[in-house]
Amino acid sequence: MLAEIITIGDEILIGQIIDSNSAFIGKELNKIGVDVYQITSISDDKQHILDALKEARQRADIVIITGGLGPTKDDITKHTICEYFNDTLVQDKKVLKHIEELFAKYISTPISNVNRQQALVPSKSTVLMNQYGTAPGMWIEDKNQVFISMPGVPYEMKGLMKNEVLPRLQKRFDRPFIIHKTVLTYGLGESAIAERIEDWENSLPPFVKLAYLPNLGRVRLRLSARGNHKTLLEDTLNNKIEELQKIIGEIIVGFEEDETIESRIGNLLVNAGKTLSVAESCTGGRIAQSFTANAGASAYFIGGVVTYATKSKIDVLGVDPETIKKHTVTSAEVAEAMAVKSKEKFKSDYAIGTTGNAGPTKGDGDVEVGTVFIAIATPKTVFSKKYVFSNLRERTIGKAVSKAFELLLNELL
Amino acid sequence: MLAEIITIGDEILIGQIIDSNSAFIGKELNKIGVDVYQITSISDDKQHILDALKEARQRADIVIITGGLGPTKDDITKHTICEYFNDTLVQDKKVLKHIEELFAKYISTPISNVNRQQALVPSKSTVLMNQYGTAPGMWIEDKNQVFISMPGVPYEMKGLMKNEVLPRLQKRFDRPFIIHKTVLTYGLGESAIAERIEDWENSLPPFVKLAYLPNLGRVRLRLSARGNHKTLLEDTLNNKIEELQKIIGEIIVGFEEDETIESRIGNLLVNAGKTLSVAESCTGGRIAQSFTANAGASAYFIGGVVTYATKSKIDVLGVDPETIKKHTVTSAEVAEAMAVKSKEKFKSDYAIGTTGNAGPTKGDGDVEVGTVFIAIATPKTVFSKKYVFSNLRERTIGKAVSKAFELLLNELL
Repeated sequence: MLAEIITIGDEILIGQIIDSNSAFIGKELNKIGVDVYQITSISDDKQHILDALKEARQRADIVIITGGLGPTKDDITKHTICEYFNDTLVQDKKVLKHIEELFAKYISTPISNVNRQQALVPSKSTVLMNQYGTAPGMWIEDKNQVFISMPGVPYEMKGLMKNEVLPRLQKRFDRPFIIHKTVLTYGLGESAIAERIEDWENSLPPFVKLAYLPNLGRVRLRLSARGNHKTLLEDTLNNKIEELQKIIGEIIVGFEEDETIESRIGNLLVNAGKTLSVAESCTGGRIAQSFTANAGASAYFIGGVVTYATKSKIDVLGVDPETIKKHTVTSAEVAEAMAVKSKEKFKSDYAIGTTGNAGPTKGDGDVEVGTVFIAIATPKTVFSKKYVFSNLRERTIGKAVSKAFELLLNELL
Repeated sequence: MLAEIITIGDEILIGQIIDSNSAFIGKELNKIGVDVYQITSISDDKQHILDALKEARQRADIVIITGGLGPTKDDITKHTICEYFNDTLVQDKKVLKHIEELFAKYISTPISNVNRQQALVPSKSTVLMNQYGTAPGMWIEDKNQVFISMPGVPYEMKGLMKNEVLPRLQKRFDRPFIIHKTVLTYGLGESAIAERIEDWENSLPPFVKLAYLPNLGRVRLRLSARGNHKTLLEDTLNNKIEELQKIIGEIIVGFEEDETIESRIGNLLVNAGKTLSVAESCTGGRIAQSFTANAGASAYFIGGVVTYATKSKIDVLGVDPETIKKHTVTSAEVAEAMAVKSKEKFKSDYAIGTTGNAGPTKGDGDVEVGTVFIAIATPKTVFSKKYVFSNLRERTIGKAVSKAFELLLNELL
């Protein structure tokens, strides 16, 4: 069972937005055993859309299209799909009512004819109600293939996928099982892992695929098994993962598909009944934000300070100005003082402190651009490490956040 | 001059990673007048790669490929490209030396044969040196078309684009001018804007295209002009934007391509010699992080606190427990107290305070999930607004951040 995703919009091709819809759709389809063969991003151009539909149906059973359903002139997907299937647009009363209700409830501007036209759909299509917006989704069956069109606004598309598209696909198609198991590792690079597990990798049966997914010093290993016998697939993957644990057990963080190092830290803290706070300088709130992005963070994350200016390290956090004067603001001593003061102020069990210079210029400190000190305060002690990353600002911030997680995880394990 | 981007990797198709490389490449190519016709994401499969190369060269002059150049078994791009061009792999001495140096300098594990094999390149290719990694880029010319292969690791690919690919493309091809002008608006929806500027939109000449790019209550309008006469394009766009300002001037935030509402706030604060701090609860550090992501934030951003737990609002920020008791933690009074206390603690001129419940459960407060209070403290006063967003956690946080920026911007303008 193969699917193809077509995302439509000039803004994707000129790079003004990143196409995150395809990743969401790919993930969800995979879970129900539908394989995405290709993702194609094209412009808001009639001929290009027609070509893409024609090509996609030669490769896939299911074609999922997002984008170009807005009310404005540059949105031509609906008219083009209608033309492709030799169809005409008809007004859907239920959609019209929904649009009118949305306007009455949430939108301060009055409803217009342009808005009402969003209730027009191809006569052959089944309407997929869009709870979160005015453009409906559409499901068209043609020569045993299914074409699905959804708006490009991510949360509208997500709602449609979950409520309409996935349940309908599950009913409509018999699918093989696809099972993924993920092993999150840290501390070792892609090629070093590859060498250590070479024999194991060679022993994988043909229906199991292995992928290495590196990201900021952590490598995710993904095993995918496909076939008609669910138990066989599961047993094989479980056995292979047990074998893998014997080879590289000490660098494995976890096995959950959506597991991240911060969610693992969260689980460890909650299980131990401990709490965390953070004092950030160069990481500017990114560590706090990474924890609080997860629902349930309030069970262990008390809070944080972003002491971006040197004086706020003194004013708000209470770092001794003498420490800063003696060791400079970017130093092991200041990172440690930040962690300790954070622990005190927030009354947490653990705390992270970061101070460094992500660049591009030297700023308040006088260390090399890319230098970061990370401190961990535990119930018993405090320690810190110095890192020199790169002169790429974004990367240095990302790496510093990642290393802070690693240091804390090491301490908790 | 048309380009096509092919991103290779099973991890893209199953949605384990979002393809952000294409957006970067698209943006950079556009700046030098190269149009991206299509972006295609495919699997690490030989036949699929061969098919994609064949199809892309029918549509484009330049084919840019990322991904699949790692040292592990699932990376087959280099071998497949070699096969496509009937070529053989040869060792490049300069690349080998570079790999050995990288290992000596940055990598703690010893260099292996797998790593050394990354110095093998197709004999017909021109090597593009990858400063940040071990896999070199490759440039192959064939029948007047250019094929470029780069690793998929974003910062390695970005370095190769800037240092090697873009300068070489500029030398190699004569290109038309493409000029984009962006107008960032806030406070009005896509269709409401469309109605107000309908006559103006109809008056645009055929070589100018308009796109609406909505995101969390802000709509970016992008005008793109293409042609051989740079002055004509620029004059036309400038005139059209002047006309636009007369129609919707009051909702325009700025005109810079990379302008965001937070960078505009930053500029206004710096020009006025004023500073900012933030006290965040439900937004969990996202506001601080949005400001500090920009180099130069230290000129106006003093710092912030993330008082995630109720007691940290008292312990760290000094909010009066009576205020919390009387009005509950999710209230206008607490948001305002947070902003005022933040201003005091950080000694800033302005401050933002946020408190709310992003869900999924009711947590410490007792308001409806999705309720957020945002307060702005100015040098003279403090005020707040209540919002009820949705029960989608991520979206509520995003919208709250966005509304906080809007309220502050309004105040500064």
